[in-house]
Amino acid sequence: MLAEIITIGDEILIGQIVDTNSAWMARELNAIGIRIKQISSVSDDREHILKALAEAKQRADIILITGGLGPTKDDITKKTLADYFGVGFVENQEALDNVTRIFAKYNRPLLEVNRQQAQVPANCEVLNNQNGTAPGMWFNHEGKIYVSMPGVPHEMMYMVEQQVIPKLKATFKLPVIIHKTLLTVGEGESFLAERIADIEDSLPPYIKLAYLPKLGQVRLRLSGYADDETTLQAEIDEFATQLTQRLGSIIAAEEDIALEKAIMNKLEQSGETLSLAESCTGGYLAHLFTQHAGSSAVFLGGAVSYAYSLKESMLSVAHDTLTKYGAVSEETATEMVQGALLNFKSTYAIAITGIAGPGGGTDDKPVGTVWIGVAGKGKMVVKKFTFGNKRQQNIERSAITALGMLNTLISAE
Amino acid sequence: MLAEIITIGDEILIGQIVDTNSAWMARELNAIGIRIKQISSVSDDREHILKALAEAKQRADIILITGGLGPTKDDITKKTLADYFGVGFVENQEALDNVTRIFAKYNRPLLEVNRQQAQVPANCEVLNNQNGTAPGMWFNHEGKIYVSMPGVPHEMMYMVEQQVIPKLKATFKLPVIIHKTLLTVGEGESFLAERIADIEDSLPPYIKLAYLPKLGQVRLRLSGYADDETTLQAEIDEFATQLTQRLGSIIAAEEDIALEKAIMNKLEQSGETLSLAESCTGGYLAHLFTQHAGSSAVFLGGAVSYAYSLKESMLSVAHDTLTKYGAVSEETATEMVQGALLNFKSTYAIAITGIAGPGGGTDDKPVGTVWIGVAGKGKMVVKKFTFGNKRQQNIERSAITALGMLNTLISAE
Repeated sequence: MLAEIITIGDEILIGQIVDTNSAWMARELNAIGIRIKQISSVSDDREHILKALAEAKQRADIILITGGLGPTKDDITKKTLADYFGVGFVENQEALDNVTRIFAKYNRPLLEVNRQQAQVPANCEVLNNQNGTAPGMWFNHEGKIYVSMPGVPHEMMYMVEQQVIPKLKATFKLPVIIHKTLLTVGEGESFLAERIADIEDSLPPYIKLAYLPKLGQVRLRLSGYADDETTLQAEIDEFATQLTQRLGSIIAAEEDIALEKAIMNKLEQSGETLSLAESCTGGYLAHLFTQHAGSSAVFLGGAVSYAYSLKESMLSVAHDTLTKYGAVSEETATEMVQGALLNFKSTYAIAITGIAGPGGGTDDKPVGTVWIGVAGKGKMVVKKFTFGNKRQQNIERSAITALGMLNTLISAE
Repeated sequence: MLAEIITIGDEILIGQIVDTNSAWMARELNAIGIRIKQISSVSDDREHILKALAEAKQRADIILITGGLGPTKDDITKKTLADYFGVGFVENQEALDNVTRIFAKYNRPLLEVNRQQAQVPANCEVLNNQNGTAPGMWFNHEGKIYVSMPGVPHEMMYMVEQQVIPKLKATFKLPVIIHKTLLTVGEGESFLAERIADIEDSLPPYIKLAYLPKLGQVRLRLSGYADDETTLQAEIDEFATQLTQRLGSIIAAEEDIALEKAIMNKLEQSGETLSLAESCTGGYLAHLFTQHAGSSAVFLGGAVSYAYSLKESMLSVAHDTLTKYGAVSEETATEMVQGALLNFKSTYAIAITGIAGPGGGTDDKPVGTVWIGVAGKGKMVVKKFTFGNKRQQNIERSAITALGMLNTLISAE
């Protein structure tokens, strides 16, 4: 069963927003055995939308459409869909009740543009929007399913989970797709490929292996497509075991999770804790940990110490160390990681101090110079790195590199 | 001048990664007057890639392709492009030197799969990859430009900035596109539309107004397309001024910047500073501030205080307050924001404590309960919010809401 996603809105095409909806929908659909054939982002333009719909229906059975359902003049999706299906508009009572309820809740008068949100193409089945005023719309037309949803992520997500997925399951007999991902740390894509070439060659045609590299990590993903779930799962598991045995300690997780989550899982099992001392990563590493549910079992917290004074007060870095060696130095990184261990009383700690850029670089400490320390249980490693000149990348690389160092420190014990 | 972006790779279609490359490329191209007609994500499948190329060339003059250039077997872009153009392969000396240099730098032996990365379609002009082993490729075929680049973001970004943009400028006479964005805070999309309806109606056909809503903020974006830059800029500025005068204090910035950046700009002008006390947002708010270059001029740092003990040690929250009222309470939020002001010696501070979920909720404090405090210069506001049950959304909403509260507190003075 194939689906396509069409996102409508100039804001994606001029790069003002990143399309995170499509990846989320793709994951949800894959989980119920629907493959995404193509994702297309098109402009708020009638002819272009019509063309995209016509092309998508040639390739797929299900077409998910997001965006362009707001009350303002640049939102033309609904009108275009009515033209595409050749139908007129009707007022939907449930949608009108919903928009009325929302405006009453916030004590706002209902404007005519809001009332018009209850007007829907005559051939659609309305999907109630729990989190907003624009209704979703489900169309069954010439054997294809079209679903139009708002582009606001939490409105779309709730609608997909509560309504679209159940209706798709009820409409189609869905095949089985199984993915199994192994997270490797510290080896490049081509070296991995060389080490597992014979296993890759032995895969049957309905199981594919993909390499997904990302800053110091490579995910190996086995994807299988078949009718019988039990047999396919057993085959995928067998190949995953072969890969795990071959690659040994560079496997950080045998599931598709982030490296920081893999680390927290290990620490939680052993009842150990973690704290942070962040300077140039400025809270990014803390956010990586705390985005995961249940992180409070392992993660105690940390200091985001941009200013010298906060390095001293929160992390007990000596004033002399900062003035003598500077904030970006082995000595400061060492005192930061030790200060975190001592002050926050965690089993492990990470400290990061560097020059993220674009300003602040000097001849001997150029932008991208980062000192990272990891410590715990009597062990400590402090290393210097020289990343590039892009701020966001320096922040991300520093964080990922620190995670790799902590993972190694923990695994070595 | 129209361009399309085609991203190749199953990892996008199964939702394993979010496509951030396209938005970045779209911004870069828009800035030099090239509009993106469509962004398509397609699978690592020969026929599908060929179809996507054929469709894109019908609509656009420039086709940017990313992904599928790695050394492993699932990477088929290069072979497919050679088939598309009907040419064979040649070894490119510059690309071979580059891959050899990189492997020598890391003291790794050059594998056959890596050497093959220097094999390119005979009709291409190689774009040297400063940050990786896969060369970029520039094709000029039947009046259309095709550019194939690696999908790894920093490899692609460097290539676009250093080589693709200059070559596009040299190849085409580019028209003018001007965008002007106003950031509004605290009013819904439909109310904004009602208040500025007459201004919107008076726009000429070559200037469009878009509403871009996002959790408590709406960006108003004027986009103009013309041949004469000076005239268009004057017109856009005139309409922007009309909008700004009409909307008054709900305008947080007259440029396309994030709310936290608008706040930092104000504080920097007045020589004031900011610190944070984050619990449930776990470093996310600190990251929002510190992702911006120059944030250290305003942002001193903050505490990420997940554990009770860290709320006490870093923020001087009284132990009795935590045990009597709990971590998620008006009393704790108040002591957190006051503790941040006092301990970190900043002009303003923000404190956030809540239950991000999915666990940790109780009957009287369900998941999504968040207390936010903002304070500075003798003023303080502490408010309770009840968000939803999704962790990531609760984190984002808490942060954005806190920014809105601080913006109001600062603007009120």
